[in-house]
Amino acid sequence: MELIGIVARLDVKDALECVHILVEKLLENGFKVGLEYGVSKLIQLQKKRDYDYKIFTLGSTLPDLLVVVGGDGTILRVLHAYRGSISIIGVKFGRRGFLAGFECSEVESLVKALVNKNITWCKAERLRSVKLPLNQELPLALNEVAVVGSRGKTIELEIRVGSRSHQVYHLKGDGVLIATAVGSYAYTAAAQGPLLKSEKCVVITPLNPLAGLSHPLVIDSSVHIEVQVGNGYRAAWVLIDGQFSTPIVPGEVLSVKSSESPVYIGYSARCPWE
Amino acid sequence: MELIGIVARLDVKDALECVHILVEKLLENGFKVGLEYGVSKLIQLQKKRDYDYKIFTLGSTLPDLLVVVGGDGTILRVLHAYRGSISIIGVKFGRRGFLAGFECSEVESLVKALVNKNITWCKAERLRSVKLPLNQELPLALNEVAVVGSRGKTIELEIRVGSRSHQVYHLKGDGVLIATAVGSYAYTAAAQGPLLKSEKCVVITPLNPLAGLSHPLVIDSSVHIEVQVGNGYRAAWVLIDGQFSTPIVPGEVLSVKSSESPVYIGYSARCPWE
Amino acid sequence: MELIGIVARLDVKDALECVHILVEKLLENGFKVGLEYGVSKLIQLQKKRDYDYKIFTLGSTLPDLLVVVGGDGTILRVLHAYRGSISIIGVKFGRRGFLAGFECSEVESLVKALVNKNITWCKAERLRSVKLPLNQELPLALNEVAVVGSRGKTIELEIRVGSRSHQVYHLKGDGVLIATAVGSYAYTAAAQGPLLKSEKCVVITPLNPLAGLSHPLVIDSSVHIEVQVGNGYRAAWVLIDGQFSTPIVPGEVLSVKSSESPVYIGYSARCPWE
Amino acid sequence: MELIGIVARLDVKDALECVHILVEKLLENGFKVGLEYGVSKLIQLQKKRDYDYKIFTLGSTLPDLLVVVGGDGTILRVLHAYRGSISIIGVKFGRRGFLAGFECSEVESLVKALVNKNITWCKAERLRSVKLPLNQELPLALNEVAVVGSRGKTIELEIRVGSRSHQVYHLKGDGVLIATAVGSYAYTAAAQGPLLKSEKCVVITPLNPLAGLSHPLVIDSSVHIEVQVGNGYRAAWVLIDGQFSTPIVPGEVLSVKSSESPVYIGYSARCPWE
Repeated sequence: MELIGIVARLDVKDALECVHILVEKLLENGFKVGLEYGVSKLIQLQKKRDYDYKIFTLGSTLPDLLVVVGGDGTILRVLHAYRGSISIIGVKFGRRGFLAGFECSEVESLVKALVNKNITWCKAERLRSVKLPLNQELPLALNEVAVVGSRGKTIELEIRVGSRSHQVYHLKGDGVLIATAVGSYAYTAAAQGPLLKSEKCVVITPLNPLAGLSHPLVIDSSVHIEVQVGNGYRAAWVLIDGQFSTPIVPGEVLSVKSSESPVYIGYSARCPWE
Repeated sequence: MELIGIVARLDVKDALECVHILVEKLLENGFKVGLEYGVSKLIQLQKKRDYDYKIFTLGSTLPDLLVVVGGDGTILRVLHAYRGSISIIGVKFGRRGFLAGFECSEVESLVKALVNKNITWCKAERLRSVKLPLNQELPLALNEVAVVGSRGKTIELEIRVGSRSHQVYHLKGDGVLIATAVGSYAYTAAAQGPLLKSEKCVVITPLNPLAGLSHPLVIDSSVHIEVQVGNGYRAAWVLIDGQFSTPIVPGEVLSVKSSESPVYIGYSARCPWE
Repeated sequence: MELIGIVARLDVKDALECVHILVEKLLENGFKVGLEYGVSKLIQLQKKRDYDYKIFTLGSTLPDLLVVVGGDGTILRVLHAYRGSISIIGVKFGRRGFLAGFECSEVESLVKALVNKNITWCKAERLRSVKLPLNQELPLALNEVAVVGSRGKTIELEIRVGSRSHQVYHLKGDGVLIATAVGSYAYTAAAQGPLLKSEKCVVITPLNPLAGLSHPLVIDSSVHIEVQVGNGYRAAWVLIDGQFSTPIVPGEVLSVKSSESPVYIGYSARCPWE
Repeated sequence: MELIGIVARLDVKDALECVHILVEKLLENGFKVGLEYGVSKLIQLQKKRDYDYKIFTLGSTLPDLLVVVGGDGTILRVLHAYRGSISIIGVKFGRRGFLAGFECSEVESLVKALVNKNITWCKAERLRSVKLPLNQELPLALNEVAVVGSRGKTIELEIRVGSRSHQVYHLKGDGVLIATAVGSYAYTAAAQGPLLKSEKCVVITPLNPLAGLSHPLVIDSSVHIEVQVGNGYRAAWVLIDGQFSTPIVPGEVLSVKSSESPVYIGYSARCPWE
């Protein structure tokens, strides 16, 4: 019997309402249900229904399938808690998002599709980033790894591409994006990058370049990328999927490559990025 | 007799060396020299030459002509200290900049040109920004007024154009630039905006737009612009010429229009933006 | 009593139907009606109604107001027939266009607005082009003057800006667009040019530049522009508003400046480019 | 013993001079030399030296290695004559090009590198295009296959991507480019497409899109692409590498996929697109 874990935005009333419907339909159809700790607390406070559910903690337990009630931002944050492969379905209380393949109003048909194994599972590769020399592992990126200045301040970057780092690009501007195929539909598209319809490649897109690298670069997704901040430029930040940020200073190196932990995202029809 | 005020970067040795040559040549040619307070202190510490000079404070005194020894960033910061019309010449210790029309090695010919009134004075309009409702006056912008998110975070803006604010643009993205003709050669060019060769127009350029305004807008420079941050978006910043920053929160309005205090920048040949 | 001249696409049945309604409503409301020669012929062939109308020829007669039944392309071609100032209203049989401010279904309210003098007249400047040395006058351009290669072939251009032609730009690529404010919403927008909200400026936009001019240039609309094709590049074309084309060869000069014959285009509400 | 075939631009005197030096050095070093028919004729006319060479015809004979004396355009045209795999080296009489890895002044070191097997051979995939329904094979494209309007005229295209053609894009604009990694550095870069550093992907770039597809699409190079011209749009052209053109009319389908005949281009150092 599959355990389906549910995570939700806690600050939006509609999300909790959506969780109730989801739990009921899942239990009716014989699934086992897990509630993320915060969700379980709110459920207990708010309503007295006697569900039979388990409680799990984000990151430490991995249910067979995660259902996230929330928008694309919530889904991205939940994924940051897991470094292994993971299956996930997003349910949005408003209209569907790019990652959230279902709306609350579609919960019944979603559960039916789960029963009938009628979900389209779209494989999405993630990028693994490590900050050297201290080997600080950052969350895996579904969309992109960005290195940006602070408050629109110009920075200078050195970007090395290739396992032997044999090609070096310089860039003066607002920063750089390293995006997966999925991520090419997000921030990268806004920065005039190309849309990737293949996971064989990733794309490096300069942000408002004043000098140096002026075109997006499409590289083999097996290739290793390193980014370094130019001397004298303080206050640069690494931003993972627009959600997680950590500073990077001259002397440190951000090393980015394809992870071996893809995400499988469930949709009712075809994969939006294929 | 004209008083020529000298400002310089204090953190670069070559700049002070350049100031010495400049002062000598100016005095030899009968000009009166003023030294900015910080410069005068360093001069006193460093060398014992007996120049006959006045001391002035940035912003409070306005010499007939300001000579700034430093790069474009230094020139922009010095101009922020003055709200009236002002004549300025930039002398860079390295290669000339866009605003710095002379190099240190050209000081002699610069002074000769001053004597012979052989300087090309390029008029550059500035933008005046006021943050409402508290009527906080920001420094006049020579290049551009930017409203940006923090650390690459997406913001939502409402941009109203027109004296009766009759046209409203929405923008979701990294921010927006409002640039003068001179500024169109700087950050705006990096953001794929057009180069303005006329001061009759200013240009509004979206930064990596995810939704809403997707093209640069060129408007009559007499037209008033208002920018407001969308509700729920904290941490937006107003950035003047990439040098001065102040936060802007939902509820506040940034009002931008042409100032009536142009700057006259001196060059040896023609104006770089004409 | 005003004479309202009607022109229409002759190859679309719906257009003629629209003309009938228009003529009836105009006559009912006391206007005098003129029919362009071709339209009058078709009307005579097709239906036997006894309208009281005059017949006029495009270009030789100028009614007080021209109503064009057709899309933006038809309107642009009709305007090419007139070199003086002209008032025009577009009526489209499908949805409104950028220039066609009304649909056929709105003919009744259009005639009412004419009676009540309740039309918004939007002034649109035009560009005058002359091919030298033979002084060949080309039609006035409402949108843009383009110089392009043939079949995607690269050309080299020299573009001189300024009355004394003191600034010269080189460009290797697909060609160049010189657009008015109105035209900035058409081909120029597709070529990543800015939208002009002021007629004080015009914009020069390179088409897929391989070398040379890489940004759109916004210049004072009073300034004169000259374009010349590089030696060894055959088969370049001048294209006016995407409708009229004429070859240009090395040695010839295309001279473009603001005409003094604006067009007044009628809309039900505000001007789409302001 | 290797046969090295030589092709050259016949309209440039310097090219023939370069051929002489090349032939001499090759013969001195024990290579067998073939001259393309046109080159051999000119050599016979011009000079009376007694070279020992064979004569070959472009397309019908394939020497072990082709050396092309000319620029990138000449190299592209020569490659169009061959549908199989081919090794080629370009020698330019001016500065090196992107494809021409050597200059005339470097002929001696080129021949030395041939002797020492010290050439860097860069593999470049080509695109195969077939015009349906008549199965007309077009030359293999090293750079790109373009479908464009004539003289800057807008066209409408339907672009189908995928073996089952399951994804359809519409595009109204100047046309579209389908480029290899090598080609992404040419016309595609001018059209704001990304630079491809991997041959696992190809890129589809819209040319000045007015409506429909607005971003470059990067797809797996194994995927099949079909392009069709919208009804009512005459005068579209297929352009291979900017050199070969053929009309395409509504009803016809241009089918493009990776060929299995890569080109090996010789350079003195590393591959310019890697």
